[in-house]
Amino acid sequence: MFAPAYLDYNATAPLRPEVREAMAPYLGARFGNASSRHEYGRQARAAVDHARAQVAAAVGAHASEVIFTSGGTEANNLFLKGVCGARRTAGILAVSAIEHPCVREPAKQLRRAGWQMRQLAVDPSGCIDPDDYAMGLSERPALVSVMLANNETGVVQDIGRLAAAARAAGVLFHTDAVQALGKIPVSFHGLGVNGMTLSAHKIGGPLGIGALVVDKRVDLVPQIAGGGQERGLRSGTENVPAIVGFGVACELAVAAQRGEAARLIGLRDRITAGVASLGGVVFSQGADRLPNTVFFAFDHVDGETLVGKLDRAGFAVASGSACSSAHPEPSASLMAMGVEQDLARGAVRVSMGWDTVAEHADEFLAALAVTVRDLRQMTACSV
Amino acid sequence: MFAPAYLDYNATAPLRPEVREAMAPYLGARFGNASSRHEYGRQARAAVDHARAQVAAAVGAHASEVIFTSGGTEANNLFLKGVCGARRTAGILAVSAIEHPCVREPAKQLRRAGWQMRQLAVDPSGCIDPDDYAMGLSERPALVSVMLANNETGVVQDIGRLAAAARAAGVLFHTDAVQALGKIPVSFHGLGVNGMTLSAHKIGGPLGIGALVVDKRVDLVPQIAGGGQERGLRSGTENVPAIVGFGVACELAVAAQRGEAARLIGLRDRITAGVASLGGVVFSQGADRLPNTVFFAFDHVDGETLVGKLDRAGFAVASGSACSSAHPEPSASLMAMGVEQDLARGAVRVSMGWDTVAEHADEFLAALAVTVRDLRQMTACSV
Repeated sequence: MFAPAYLDYNATAPLRPEVREAMAPYLGARFGNASSRHEYGRQARAAVDHARAQVAAAVGAHASEVIFTSGGTEANNLFLKGVCGARRTAGILAVSAIEHPCVREPAKQLRRAGWQMRQLAVDPSGCIDPDDYAMGLSERPALVSVMLANNETGVVQDIGRLAAAARAAGVLFHTDAVQALGKIPVSFHGLGVNGMTLSAHKIGGPLGIGALVVDKRVDLVPQIAGGGQERGLRSGTENVPAIVGFGVACELAVAAQRGEAARLIGLRDRITAGVASLGGVVFSQGADRLPNTVFFAFDHVDGETLVGKLDRAGFAVASGSACSSAHPEPSASLMAMGVEQDLARGAVRVSMGWDTVAEHADEFLAALAVTVRDLRQMTACSV
Repeated sequence: MFAPAYLDYNATAPLRPEVREAMAPYLGARFGNASSRHEYGRQARAAVDHARAQVAAAVGAHASEVIFTSGGTEANNLFLKGVCGARRTAGILAVSAIEHPCVREPAKQLRRAGWQMRQLAVDPSGCIDPDDYAMGLSERPALVSVMLANNETGVVQDIGRLAAAARAAGVLFHTDAVQALGKIPVSFHGLGVNGMTLSAHKIGGPLGIGALVVDKRVDLVPQIAGGGQERGLRSGTENVPAIVGFGVACELAVAAQRGEAARLIGLRDRITAGVASLGGVVFSQGADRLPNTVFFAFDHVDGETLVGKLDRAGFAVASGSACSSAHPEPSASLMAMGVEQDLARGAVRVSMGWDTVAEHADEFLAALAVTVRDLRQMTACSV
């Protein structure tokens, strides 16, 4: 089978072999329902407990603060709608202008219940604008949600500082840490947040599992009600194999984080320099960025077209965030940063991970050079 | 490893080997995000499309009517809260008195939004009471939810007739078919329902995946909002391996349904007769029941204690529905049927499936005879 070089880790990462191995018994003889009161059930419950401790340890939280969900999208929905649903009266909820749709959309849904959605501006590099943030807090929102690292630009926010300011203002703080986990150090208590969203499949764990790490003093209305699993905050039969895989993936990702970051920064900077030498623009270069992500564009080169050509040349990269690639609008993050629409339409994202090797980066740059040259010639001819 | 005989299929079923095999490539080289626009993404998308057609075919629906969810609990929440959330004003929602908590609890949650929850009574055999049902419809609820087959008693309702009456009254009809799929024939259009809930792990598919099959004329507010997957009705990265497994499990379960039903009815009736010969009561014996389920009790024998003793003897059975086994209350289904609380506290459920063999049933009956005799002697001594 032809296997293109995979450079789209921010969309999803290949399952780590150790994770697959850890999951295997739970896709086999250990198939029990974790709520059953017999040997099969006890095996499953023990596995869930162990994995919960692994996930908690990976982000410096207590196991009892981890609520397993079907993924990051559900965890973000749970925090936003869960917190607002528990309030007696509707108020303001503040979310940054560069949040993933799975934060922005539930925030928009809450408008129907009378909530006002306040967007927090970013500066041209993609960092939260401190003045607008202070103003946002002064409007006394019920909660603030700012992602730890952006899925497109890779920009890392100073969540510790932002959360401290929210705490001082008596405002609950949530961070979507889906793209940060395993790439940079992440600490729930260190950052001082009240809620944090995690996802397994971005770190080499399985699809269909994630977690909301949540301060137990936060009142939450469950969004999926039923049998009372996960302390009554998320009902449904526990997805034991996925939970086991998530636990192992967390352990591996955090153990490897420092070394991997150093290695990937090398590749990231090589691609950044290569793109620049071809005349491309790398977004958010001035900001603190994830070690694995390069988001760039070439003037007069359409991003979708470039991604298609690179795909045929054997390189899997993304043009926007994968979840919204069905929509042809330019990246919302770039729009919030004030990037011109024409340039934003050219945006391409390279994101690397545990199975990326140096050759991928070099071969990618060679293919990019040829592809951009060809596309520019076509544009020149058509003018 | 010691492997007790597994007789708790209504809690969860072991993964079928063919399902595990079908999932394997998607836990390996075919790991792409189905929304990605490159080779990995296209592979994943094709797999999801194929599985959607398999699930739809299994219940006589159109592929476009299938919305994948993280399981049955989420699908039930989506229909109930999704339909009610789309209405401008709160009204009545009617659910049967024997629904699973994942129908009853979202219905209760809707009370906060002003909805009135109307319970539909059952007769002593566990079948919907026709007079109360007619009265319930005359109160003009926004929707009715009645499960196709009960997880505890195994009673199968005449959903075709109930749905026709609802349709005539202009009331939306939903059925939780989680326990029916693969055990009896299930047809979305044949039953004439507007919504139907399915789950993979009850039929030998993976945990963490289910579906809401829904009539496209039904207005639904998404409960998990974000990137817009599943026609905007359920956001979140598609759980491709689980979806693939669900599709294959549906195909296998439906192909084997007739033969398996005949085989399991033989075992069910053998256990029913065995329990009766030991002086036990089998619930809902007069009603149309699932081929795989026997729900019974012995006077003056506690169900939890019996389940524990049987577990140590090497038989995995359930005392209540697995999802609520954390709560020691007697079965809500039995209470609704008017069974005396003391007898209900003795309830034990045996449920069989694809990997159950005749020896399990015979050995179980032998162990049950010894265990019940011992427990009765203990009771007699303590009196």
